[in-house]
Amino acid sequence: MTHFSTPATKPQGFVHFVGAGPGAVQHLTLGALRAIQGADVILYDRLIGPEILALAPKNAAAIEVGKTGFGTSTPQAVINALLVSHARTGAQVVRMKAGDSGIFGRLDEEIEALEAASLPFAILPGLTAATVAAATIGQSLTKRGRNASVRFLTGHDVAGYAEQDWRSLAKAGQVAAIYMGKKSARFLQGRLLMHGANPQTAITLVENISRADQQIIASNLERLAEDILALTGPAVLLYGLKPRQAQQALAQVPIMAEVRA
Amino acid sequence: MTHFSTPATKPQGFVHFVGAGPGAVQHLTLGALRAIQGADVILYDRLIGPEILALAPKNAAAIEVGKTGFGTSTPQAVINALLVSHARTGAQVVRMKAGDSGIFGRLDEEIEALEAASLPFAILPGLTAATVAAATIGQSLTKRGRNASVRFLTGHDVAGYAEQDWRSLAKAGQVAAIYMGKKSARFLQGRLLMHGANPQTAITLVENISRADQQIIASNLERLAEDILALTGPAVLLYGLKPRQAQQALAQVPIMAEVRA
Repeated sequence: MTHFSTPATKPQGFVHFVGAGPGAVQHLTLGALRAIQGADVILYDRLIGPEILALAPKNAAAIEVGKTGFGTSTPQAVINALLVSHARTGAQVVRMKAGDSGIFGRLDEEIEALEAASLPFAILPGLTAATVAAATIGQSLTKRGRNASVRFLTGHDVAGYAEQDWRSLAKAGQVAAIYMGKKSARFLQGRLLMHGANPQTAITLVENISRADQQIIASNLERLAEDILALTGPAVLLYGLKPRQAQQALAQVPIMAEVRA
Repeated sequence: MTHFSTPATKPQGFVHFVGAGPGAVQHLTLGALRAIQGADVILYDRLIGPEILALAPKNAAAIEVGKTGFGTSTPQAVINALLVSHARTGAQVVRMKAGDSGIFGRLDEEIEALEAASLPFAILPGLTAATVAAATIGQSLTKRGRNASVRFLTGHDVAGYAEQDWRSLAKAGQVAAIYMGKKSARFLQGRLLMHGANPQTAITLVENISRADQQIIASNLERLAEDILALTGPAVLLYGLKPRQAQQALAQVPIMAEVRA
């Protein structure tokens, strides 16, 4: 905490970047809960649900700064300006993102804005979609004898559809979690088949992970472009994995509604 | 919950696979906390710290089933047998692993033992080392314009040193988290350099993540084999990332000692 741009008599503002996990309160960390409970201002993404927002103090200001995969809604520059202006008032600011801020969370642009303004921050990691989705279908992302690495990749980036190392992904036994893959499903399918992937390679689509409207579709590379049309919400694609036993794996510890007490 | 191998009059045992995160209590999820608080028996890895074990009920049996990267200690078959025998008594069993069970956690072997015994289970995901390490050094694992994918890989697997797709890892802008990379550091270094990686590629070593004895070393590919000798505890190697501003990034929400109350 060595950065001060305001006189020492003014309270020091602080920004906690909080990864809130994919949705359910049970996936929030204790550190994230503590930060939310101590917040004066919360800037949150569209995907953060009401159960998590309800954990904030009643007098905290909660501001949605929606941002979707294909980027309508709040411009990044506006989010940056909000972070800086609120922290400058001395507020404890929570910048809450779905999943983990460090994985396809556009964290750096916001940190750079704080650094430019000499404002202090900390990052509280959260559960990313891939981790929760794999647990939900009863599978591991890595497995001895099958895959010694797992990749998290995005279906699109600033340049459009994201090019990946298709040749190595097309090999047998590879596992990858594909984020923002809905609109690029046909592209992904084409690239992987072109590089020799087995059309029967399992792909599990997990939509609205850990939410009441969660949907799991056991698909494969050949059927991907069709099966993905059934999805309307945010989803992660687990390439190389199929659900172990859907019903059993879906059994979870009951979601807690009263952690606040 | 459709699997019963015992008469319906006997209480139904259940196994929660709990990813406990890398060490600090603040990185535990609320779901994990709830499972721990409801446990009759806890089977835990060597890396689980006393602060987390202290969250269990006083009358719960806590059994260490230590397992290190290079595999001395409790054989897998013994762990499997303990899981099955405790669950068969009707106990709520927590199988607690450091990090996330689904990432280099050898989860599948234990699940298969439960399936063979028709015992029910659920997986509660946890924060894996890579996610927490990146947050700790103030960096993102993915960044627009730099990398559209991130890899988690292991330095060794059943066959010895793990072969990876070195050619694509050697390209500029790649980011990977390397688990169990201490003993294989010289091998990794050799492979990456042989495939054309820049010797100045940043590698940050994060040891004992989130624990009191955490150590962060900003290294690079050229110095890796030497710098790694300074480590004695479990570590993750962040390939392609350097600490943003060590002091600032290290500022975290205070670790909570009293979540039990």
